[in-house]
Amino acid sequence: MADKKNDFIADIDTDFAQWYTDVVIKAQLIDYTDIKGCLAIRAYGYAIWENIQKELDARFKDTGHENVYMPLLIPESLLQKEKDHVKGFAPEVAWVTHGGNDLLEERMCIRPTSETLFCSMYSKWVKSWRDLPMLYNQWCSVMRWEKTTRPFLRSREFLWQEGHTLHLTEEEAQRETLMILDIYADFCENFLAIPVLKGKKTEKEKFPGARATYSLETLMHDSVALQIATTHDFSQNFSKAFKIEYLSDKGVLENPYQTSWGISTRSIGAIIMVHGDNNGLVIPPKIAPTQIVIVPIAQQKAMVLEEAGKVFKRLKDIGLRVKLDDRDNFSTGYKFSDWEMKGVPIRLEIGPKDIESHKVVVARRDTGEKMDVPMEALEVEIVKIMDASQQFLFDKALKHKEERTSFALTMDELQAQIKSKLGYVKAMWCGESVCEDKVKEITEATARCIPFEQEHLSNQCVCCGKEAKHLVYWAKAY
Amino acid sequence: MADKKNDFIADIDTDFAQWYTDVVIKAQLIDYTDIKGCLAIRAYGYAIWENIQKELDARFKDTGHENVYMPLLIPESLLQKEKDHVKGFAPEVAWVTHGGNDLLEERMCIRPTSETLFCSMYSKWVKSWRDLPMLYNQWCSVMRWEKTTRPFLRSREFLWQEGHTLHLTEEEAQRETLMILDIYADFCENFLAIPVLKGKKTEKEKFPGARATYSLETLMHDSVALQIATTHDFSQNFSKAFKIEYLSDKGVLENPYQTSWGISTRSIGAIIMVHGDNNGLVIPPKIAPTQIVIVPIAQQKAMVLEEAGKVFKRLKDIGLRVKLDDRDNFSTGYKFSDWEMKGVPIRLEIGPKDIESHKVVVARRDTGEKMDVPMEALEVEIVKIMDASQQFLFDKALKHKEERTSFALTMDELQAQIKSKLGYVKAMWCGESVCEDKVKEITEATARCIPFEQEHLSNQCVCCGKEAKHLVYWAKAY
Repeated sequence: MADKKNDFIADIDTDFAQWYTDVVIKAQLIDYTDIKGCLAIRAYGYAIWENIQKELDARFKDTGHENVYMPLLIPESLLQKEKDHVKGFAPEVAWVTHGGNDLLEERMCIRPTSETLFCSMYSKWVKSWRDLPMLYNQWCSVMRWEKTTRPFLRSREFLWQEGHTLHLTEEEAQRETLMILDIYADFCENFLAIPVLKGKKTEKEKFPGARATYSLETLMHDSVALQIATTHDFSQNFSKAFKIEYLSDKGVLENPYQTSWGISTRSIGAIIMVHGDNNGLVIPPKIAPTQIVIVPIAQQKAMVLEEAGKVFKRLKDIGLRVKLDDRDNFSTGYKFSDWEMKGVPIRLEIGPKDIESHKVVVARRDTGEKMDVPMEALEVEIVKIMDASQQFLFDKALKHKEERTSFALTMDELQAQIKSKLGYVKAMWCGESVCEDKVKEITEATARCIPFEQEHLSNQCVCCGKEAKHLVYWAKAY
Repeated sequence: MADKKNDFIADIDTDFAQWYTDVVIKAQLIDYTDIKGCLAIRAYGYAIWENIQKELDARFKDTGHENVYMPLLIPESLLQKEKDHVKGFAPEVAWVTHGGNDLLEERMCIRPTSETLFCSMYSKWVKSWRDLPMLYNQWCSVMRWEKTTRPFLRSREFLWQEGHTLHLTEEEAQRETLMILDIYADFCENFLAIPVLKGKKTEKEKFPGARATYSLETLMHDSVALQIATTHDFSQNFSKAFKIEYLSDKGVLENPYQTSWGISTRSIGAIIMVHGDNNGLVIPPKIAPTQIVIVPIAQQKAMVLEEAGKVFKRLKDIGLRVKLDDRDNFSTGYKFSDWEMKGVPIRLEIGPKDIESHKVVVARRDTGEKMDVPMEALEVEIVKIMDASQQFLFDKALKHKEERTSFALTMDELQAQIKSKLGYVKAMWCGESVCEDKVKEITEATARCIPFEQEHLSNQCVCCGKEAKHLVYWAKAY
């Protein structure tokens, strides 16, 4: 599907940024509003988010987490309680100063994240070791006053979930951050068909206030990296700052260990940028709001709409998300490119000739293949094709990631490979932030993560030549 | 269940306000935060909201509505576009004046409701008559800078859904407002077990900017009324102010007709205040986060936990929301009152004697009845008991409403009946707001609605004695 057939969107390989903006608008995922940096998520985009929510929420609940809802506003004094945290977030929050006509005694910010709110409640709710663990999550919007905006990737307001948990021991908290990272990874790979790189963030890139941040890194079509989800191990940093204390089984007051973790509407940006092509969006079947669209051919002719309706019912009855496009004011060609733009995984055509020969024509969005499917095997074949498409998209993205991962032993190599847009470049690192800064300055690439699966390329830091501590994946990132 | 057994909460008939606050805190539905007027919805309270969302969302989607997400912030100039609307909401919004360290060029309010945002997008999205109807909804939080706070009933921030639709004709818009009102009514009566009164708001009580507002009124245990849901018919008021125009099938530019409608976390307040008793919360089975709690008796004895586990699995397997309380650090008595406080519809006890006689003991939260259920009939009997409990709660609330509804022909009667806390008082009204104001001044009761089911009590307005136009339900309200 590399052929460019669609004139409504920029070419994906010539101008990826424009292609992306064109696709999110033309596929009606999102739209710009009168409010700078804030976007409206349209019905089709929100339906993807609902599928993401449904899948993840079930997994969080299966692992013992419950949902709550904390206030939208954080008083300035509360934000200031953890010193690294306030330093990280205060410069980019929106401040509420007036309620109605009255000036507030203390200004409040719209939550950029809710650690401080959870901590203030936890300090009331935790009393005994029997109250632990506390495993809460919330689905909400957050606000960060960014200067630049890109739909789904960077906007002042975005939707996400934020998990916040308290544990008896450091080990248990650490296990939680890794268990949730596994849930995210499984979800990304098996639902979004996006291969992930699992690792730990460097000190410089970690969350303000965390002891350690773990992340999932993904690689987009243009070989730029995108962090799709993170989990944070706070140790006792927040629980000490907020005086969260419990009476242990030995009768001693202790501070619990804490985590937080999140994934956002950014993940929709990743779906677009990993799978999309010159005809628009390509959505993996498992996450697609519409999995199959039925386009009747010559629908004014006898039996066509009736038979299309039967096919619709058969597929709906086995739980598939299916649409029948019987609009009479658009040509078949228009309908085809409309649903291609929207990335619907399977198009099913049925016309007089198909009815005569007891078959339908099935077109795959991912490969562009067209095939006949006998009417009696409809359900079985469609499910097979959807599975194949899901797998195809993952394999394709994995191949892309592998092709776009290289390694460097010297700064010259690192610079050259980043410059030639080679995606991830693996290189050894001494662990000092001065080298991390220098790599960024020279190559514009950041340390995406210290991957859990370490390799040994050499004994020397790619930058300073001193003893290497870790292998790092470097890349330019969104 | 009028017997007061629980010392942790105030008596429901002596001090209803304190009883309410005690219950929401002790049942862990909600908690106060450091932020005045903003509350934290705890896991148990949020689980009720999730059930409400799930039920209503399915009904909205079945009737063709899709979810979207609009920005949280509204620029002041946008809020000002519809004159009645801004007059109604501007005095009670929270204003954002700074982003990071910068003063904003134009201040923005946190949405108190999103008509203006939907309108600004609709003016971009609607082009042709073929684009109509537009049927959108969003689930979000909104903020209104209230002076006084009561959990779920009145708080600065609350959660709700707001539907916003556009239609070709006035009749179609009107049909939408009534169809949605029916959805809300069916949901309230059949899921929340709360009988509703359907009617139209007076001019004075209608939504700022609406042509007509329809509402569902409910009556609490203390015989004070609560408006649980509203739908608004905007006619072309907003579409003209926001220049939403489409090309009709005759090639003429026209303004569509518009509606909006919403139900909020207030409905949780109604559940509490309609069904609760002196032992705490009573939740109707269909909406209960936990429908059945299994409390093992003498759980340290052989077989007890094993058999309790089997019962748990059998009930879970037929799709019921069931919990097994095998905590070993609380007495059976403590567990009983804990789950009673939380209003779990059915408690199931199983101990060595029950195991011996192949039965369980079932206690109903609504009536307090206890009965033996043979093990082999478990699933069938539990489902029957849940249905009976759902019906019992509705019937009880309906009886209360009927007992607390009277009528008045004179102002003296109206005043006397409102004063003696008689709930709804029906009385005739001339339709003039001067009489509506006078009734409120004298009795503190407001016109709850002009009910769809009109009755003829007399020809004269209860206040001025002039010709009556409508029968009105008057009541004090939350």
